[in-house]
Amino acid sequence: MPYITVKMLEGRNEEQKRALVERVTEAVSETVNAPKENIVVFIEEMPKNHYAVAGKRLSDTE
Amino acid sequence: MPYITVKMLEGRNEEQKRALVERVTEAVSETVNAPKENIVVFIEEMPKNHYAVAGKRLSDTE
Amino acid sequence: MPYITVKMLEGRNEEQKRALVERVTEAVSETVNAPKENIVVFIEEMPKNHYAVAGKRLSDTE
Amino acid sequence: MPYITVKMLEGRNEEQKRALVERVTEAVSETVNAPKENIVVFIEEMPKNHYAVAGKRLSDTE
Amino acid sequence: MPYITVKMLEGRNEEQKRALVERVTEAVSETVNAPKENIVVFIEEMPKNHYAVAGKRLSDTE
Amino acid sequence: MPYITVKMLEGRNEEQKRALVERVTEAVSETVNAPKENIVVFIEEMPKNHYAVAGKRLSDTE
Repeated sequence: MPYITVKMLEGRNEEQKRALVERVTEAVSETVNAPKENIVVFIEEMPKNHYAVAGKRLSDTE
Repeated sequence: MPYITVKMLEGRNEEQKRALVERVTEAVSETVNAPKENIVVFIEEMPKNHYAVAGKRLSDTE
Repeated sequence: MPYITVKMLEGRNEEQKRALVERVTEAVSETVNAPKENIVVFIEEMPKNHYAVAGKRLSDTE
Repeated sequence: MPYITVKMLEGRNEEQKRALVERVTEAVSETVNAPKENIVVFIEEMPKNHYAVAGKRLSDTE
Repeated sequence: MPYITVKMLEGRNEEQKRALVERVTEAVSETVNAPKENIVVFIEEMPKNHYAVAGKRLSDTE
Repeated sequence: MPYITVKMLEGRNEEQKRALVERVTEAVSETVNAPKENIVVFIEEMPKNHYAVAGKRLSDTE
């Protein structure tokens, strides 16, 4: 605890994901006073044809 | 805002998904009085072996 | 199936929520060819102090 | 109703997943007094590079 | 790991919830071969006016 | 995009939550190269009787 889910488009590389979970864990640990050992981060990726804003999928706007 | 997630079995084609996000966005916009530009739709697909009703996965009932 | 979750700010009235689930169910049924009886809608509400865009909670911007 | 989501690392085989949904459905049915027919289980799998504890992804710790 | 979310209507008492998390944890532990110490269960409750099947909220059908 | 959900126990004060969303947004923006304006953070709180580790709810272990 806490449990953090980051939902984003596919396409980030391993270095970016490694930095992402490290930095998010620090940010949560320092602000809500939780030990790092208890913090869990999940990454969820979505393809462009499964994400829509204003009724248009990202895959249909390019 | 609002954020809508549609979770369903794999297998719909691109035309169905395009219509789905368009129609759902309209339905939400008109009923809760939110501008379309602020409405986000996520599609999540699941395979038949990851979905169970009454203790039986769909992949085990066919 | 499908399962739809609508996440939005608190404050809509019962009439709006009743229309929301009815219209969203129709939109999903007609576009992905699912019988209405199988469609489930969940509403999730969040307060303004639990929702942030660009690092600012909605409760801090008013 | 109820709806149960089991999120876990990739790698379980079909026999394990079949037993998982069957046993979880029984556990829920017997404790909260819900008919099995109404219980839905979703399995969600995540890869090791999308799951982090203490700021380290599982894929970076092996 | 695994992380289990049980989403259900409001109204179960503390004894039922206590038994629910205990029995679900056992079911998961024994079927996917995970130590109990690593298993996390979240309960999420929803009110009857936030849950709809076939376009009708449960609060509108009684 | 990205969308971040932070799930944690009830009890943090407004100052902690304000800092949390600000710092998490920065951490995500800088590591995955997303403009802050596109980043959304949701906070979800859970009570101690809805959270269990190893089959015991937090409310039953104190």
